Amino acid sequence: MSRKTMVRPGGRSARVQASVHAAVRELEAEAGREALTVPLVAARAGVTPSTIYRRWGDLQELLSDVAVERLRPETEPQDTGSLRSDLEAWAEQFLEEMSAPAGRAYIRDALLGDPDGSNAGQCSAYAAEQIGVILDRAAGREEKAPGVDTVLDRVVAPMMYRILFRPQGLDTAYARRLVAGLVGPAGR
Amino acid sequence: MSRKTMVRPGGRSARVQASVHAAVRELEAEAGREALTVPLVAARAGVTPSTIYRRWGDLQELLSDVAVERLRPETEPQDTGSLRSDLEAWAEQFLEEMSAPAGRAYIRDALLGDPDGSNAGQCSAYAAEQIGVILDRAAGREEKAPGVDTVLDRVVAPMMYRILFRPQGLDTAYARRLVAGLVGPAGR
Repeated sequence: MSRKTMVRPGGRSARVQASVHAAVRELEAEAGREALTVPLVAARAGVTPSTIYRRWGDLQELLSDVAVERLRPETEPQDTGSLRSDLEAWAEQFLEEMSAPAGRAYIRDALLGDPDGSNAGQCSAYAAEQIGVILDRAAGREEKAPGVDTVLDRVVAPMMYRILFRPQGLDTAYARRLVAGLVGPAGR
Repeated sequence: MSRKTMVRPGGRSARVQASVHAAVRELEAEAGREALTVPLVAARAGVTPSTIYRRWGDLQELLSDVAVERLRPETEPQDTGSLRSDLEAWAEQFLEEMSAPAGRAYIRDALLGDPDGSNAGQCSAYAAEQIGVILDRAAGREEKAPGVDTVLDRVVAPMMYRILFRPQGLDTAYARRLVAGLVGPAGR
């Protein structure tokens, strides 16, 4: 069983997690990412370094968990009145956030300290949930809509591939082109 | 200027690179990835640890360079007689190699120790080159063909996204579906 499955909300384990995550965010804001060490984080969080090593294995796994928390969407996708415009608005915002330096750092952190792939899976699950909300709304409006997997393949995957492998020249027009390629251009 | 731009084929710098890369591959095969350290690699390569730190910064950057070398395609894509079958054969092989444990480890290594993004860019450039060969052949047969960027968005990006973020249940049928979605199903 993974270490992470042991956490219960409100228990000691959850409190340790909250204080360690907060310590990472504070120290990163104050001293920068490069200055982070497990002993520094432990001192700020009021736990022993061995608590961190036992729970997270190493600094990379801890940073991966913190990154996934930060990648969690805070609001539902905007309802702009149609499938195409909802997808456009969501994709533009996703691309803007994820291609910014902070977003790229979180994606890398999430992927890299993630030996069992659960954090990467969680990132994708966040995107799938948001797309699911948009598609349910489209169904409510009786609009014809693709499935979640198709939107992941045609809109999310190309954006994420560019962000990770060829970030030069990425702009929101790219997000709009991907959506238009899937559901047809605006004004049709 | 990046450290990496200083390498000239045949010079001392190229010989150091070749022996250090070989040392990483040998030690990884003998003792496993977790056992690698800069002093061990240096001793095997016959250089000082400071040579490695000066040239690569740290072990992660060295592993990223070695990973990109391993991801370099060794042969041209197979000529199977049509655009669709060439793309299918290439995509199936790409997915098989990249989703295997070794392939996934190389992709992660390439992304991880890559502060300026040049190694990630090189991985994508390898894929773009191979696709370019396939599209040039299609043009020679006077087949209608999409552009390289479209193939990256519609075939490569979804495979890489799944490999990195949701690898469960990936199989070569997925590669064929992506190709069929772009250039039409077989037998049309």
